[in-house]
Amino acid sequence: MPRVIKPPEIRSAELLDCAQRLFFERGYDNTTVNDIIREAGLSKGAFYYYFASKEALLEALATRLARDSFTELQPVLNDPSLDGLGRLNALFAGSRRLNVELAPHMRRTFFVLFRPENLALFHRVDQAARELAMPIITDLLRKGRDEGIFDVPDPEAFAEMFLQLRLIFRDVMHRALLKAEQGNIDEAARLLDDRLRLYGIAIDRLLKLPDGTIEAAQPGFARAFLEAGP
Amino acid sequence: MPRVIKPPEIRSAELLDCAQRLFFERGYDNTTVNDIIREAGLSKGAFYYYFASKEALLEALATRLARDSFTELQPVLNDPSLDGLGRLNALFAGSRRLNVELAPHMRRTFFVLFRPENLALFHRVDQAARELAMPIITDLLRKGRDEGIFDVPDPEAFAEMFLQLRLIFRDVMHRALLKAEQGNIDEAARLLDDRLRLYGIAIDRLLKLPDGTIEAAQPGFARAFLEAGP
Repeated sequence: MPRVIKPPEIRSAELLDCAQRLFFERGYDNTTVNDIIREAGLSKGAFYYYFASKEALLEALATRLARDSFTELQPVLNDPSLDGLGRLNALFAGSRRLNVELAPHMRRTFFVLFRPENLALFHRVDQAARELAMPIITDLLRKGRDEGIFDVPDPEAFAEMFLQLRLIFRDVMHRALLKAEQGNIDEAARLLDDRLRLYGIAIDRLLKLPDGTIEAAQPGFARAFLEAGP
Repeated sequence: MPRVIKPPEIRSAELLDCAQRLFFERGYDNTTVNDIIREAGLSKGAFYYYFASKEALLEALATRLARDSFTELQPVLNDPSLDGLGRLNALFAGSRRLNVELAPHMRRTFFVLFRPENLALFHRVDQAARELAMPIITDLLRKGRDEGIFDVPDPEAFAEMFLQLRLIFRDVMHRALLKAEQGNIDEAARLLDDRLRLYGIAIDRLLKLPDGTIEAAQPGFARAFLEAGP
């Protein structure tokens, strides 16, 4: 059988697909470069042509995972009809919509990323997401401040705090998914909805908006996210 | 030479001391159980008598590091003359005092804990600190709410958010320490002071207090912390 020649970007995407599948199945720490090349049907030389190390592959994978979700939310950020508050609420609404649309995949991803043996993977994905999100959120806060809607002493520092604060959902989501897995869907949905509501209030207060202005929560969201099949 | 018999709590404390020294020098991931027993002059059997695994030792070490700082701050929390706001400000003042008093040790600890190869160690210390701090902060917020000083919709959820938000200092402190190491003390002190001030404002706003009520920052603190010898 002649060797199939593929363009490098296809090959590296395939390697990332294989690695993602293995990391999700066994955990990052339990997957070796040998496992990945075996799964991808490539030589070690070919692997190292694309990635200097397993770490470098992890970094590329994290960036890809982070970029995928941002690409979906981009239209909202460029919508000229929205002011700062409209953009921020549209961002939360878009993120909820994506989470429900892709619920089974997202639940599995969260479940895997929050496993202790995947701490390094989670950390990288979070880093990559932060790097992508920082200029976007900073810009959003600056524009909202210039429009007189947000009271923000320092858009960049506040963007950092917002991105930090969202990480409470690492633990909250993990607890909710565990409850859901044990059949306590009501309790799981209540926890997730409640924390989203309180997170929205925290954002309101940080921007000096009245409680309930930012719509991080939405009735029925948590249940839809936790129950959407398969 | 007769074998020295020591009580188990002394032995396990010595093992923790050895492990801490090695983790700080080489990183957690680069230290093996063999390294630790060689340094401590103990057998493998003795090690496993005290700790089921390197992970279990890490957990014990994290709890000890976290508990040490809380013990120092305990008097403030039990001071009956303080109201919620007084307690919170005293907690920040106490934490600054400790950081300056132990500055060389704290700087080295932070520098080591924030190294990428010590992610697991950092994570465990943070977890242990959270577990200790959660009931304390929740109680502080609940009392302050009952006194009519803080506006807190949910003391437990807000305590979680506060503990999450403080982690912006992982990155801020790392950047400040790097700048200081490169000789840019002015810039390092400005960054740290500024972020402490903004963090204080964030806490004010989350509790619906006027900006500047919570004294997380204090003029001269960052410089004192960064410069205190040796």
